[in-house]
Amino acid sequence: MNDSVRLIEVKENVLADNEAMAKELQQELKSKKTFLLNLMASPGAGKTSTVLATIDRLRADLKIAVMEADLDSTVDAEKVLATGVDAIQIRTGGFCHMDATMVKDGLDVIGYDQFDLVILENVGNLVCPAEFETGAIKNAMILSVPEGDDKPLKYPLMFSVCDVLIVNKIDYLERSDFNMDKLTERVKAINPNIEIIQISCRTGEGVDEWAAWLNDQVTRFL
Amino acid sequence: MNDSVRLIEVKENVLADNEAMAKELQQELKSKKTFLLNLMASPGAGKTSTVLATIDRLRADLKIAVMEADLDSTVDAEKVLATGVDAIQIRTGGFCHMDATMVKDGLDVIGYDQFDLVILENVGNLVCPAEFETGAIKNAMILSVPEGDDKPLKYPLMFSVCDVLIVNKIDYLERSDFNMDKLTERVKAINPNIEIIQISCRTGEGVDEWAAWLNDQVTRFL
Repeated sequence: MNDSVRLIEVKENVLADNEAMAKELQQELKSKKTFLLNLMASPGAGKTSTVLATIDRLRADLKIAVMEADLDSTVDAEKVLATGVDAIQIRTGGFCHMDATMVKDGLDVIGYDQFDLVILENVGNLVCPAEFETGAIKNAMILSVPEGDDKPLKYPLMFSVCDVLIVNKIDYLERSDFNMDKLTERVKAINPNIEIIQISCRTGEGVDEWAAWLNDQVTRFL
Repeated sequence: MNDSVRLIEVKENVLADNEAMAKELQQELKSKKTFLLNLMASPGAGKTSTVLATIDRLRADLKIAVMEADLDSTVDAEKVLATGVDAIQIRTGGFCHMDATMVKDGLDVIGYDQFDLVILENVGNLVCPAEFETGAIKNAMILSVPEGDDKPLKYPLMFSVCDVLIVNKIDYLERSDFNMDKLTERVKAINPNIEIIQISCRTGEGVDEWAAWLNDQVTRFL
């Protein structure tokens, strides 16, 4: 473990009214002009790679910090810190999602009012994080091509709560039976207003488009 | 939705002592000589493909049935039924895992005492299913190469509760930075006794080895 990683161990307050807490946090973020992005995905869909690519594209324009949430380990925060961008690791100690109280604790540690954009990399899970509002200004999810185009059928709530869907690892499309039209149709049936952006963190394809979308959202918010 | 799919909607009994229920179910399975395999993985790691490949290899030797668990949809059970093997779909209605009571309900519907092997395809999630014993005789998990070799660091509980780890999609190894030695080292540090089997459901590589391992486990149990 890297000594410079600040590590937060959180506990879920099952009694808290999470929704009320999330709304309060959202108001606070608005007053401090800090855009919080909640980034959700399955394990291994490419959350950290997308965070790193986003930092690379937007660090000249925005003051960015990252909160990495995981059941255990500090590897993701270490990767972000290596870029010179501020990051903390939130260790959930087994919890399968982040709630607004945990997010607020993390934001306080990171001193969020200095930043234009804070990216929360939620726990890798397509189920539970969709059920807990975090206070984020926008929700994003990543679906990677190897996971398959049937995921909206199986995890509809996740697709319904997101403002943007990033389809990552499109460099795998050629050797896959993934059907982008079918995916789009399934996603739009659940959430007609969702933005869908195709990227490959490996080749860089589409990353500029994603970064431009996010930059536009943050700029309009600030 | 295929009319021939039997669909069970389950509710979690939060008051039940899940561990006691799981142990009771395990005893019952032993007395009826039905081997229950609990198959866990991230969304899109290849659970259903592995189930289909397993059916193909073992259907001549064993009487097999499948219980597919998902938040929503019946697509997986339809795929299994298309092989002629009996299957039911368990719709968890948002629950992120299966518990022993849900499993017992499914087994009763499928008439499990007629079968040598029942495969439970758990909800796609590396977090919550690891926390709930299902009554299964053995726990298996699939990790797919595109998910990355760092998953044991992030989801240690899942790796600790499994008897066997299937590493799927090894046909992606050549275009990936996945390090099998590192993965093995990380997994064995958590669970020294776990069996690790490399497969590709797409090319068929390793599937015979996996099927032989499972067949051996079932034969010893019966």
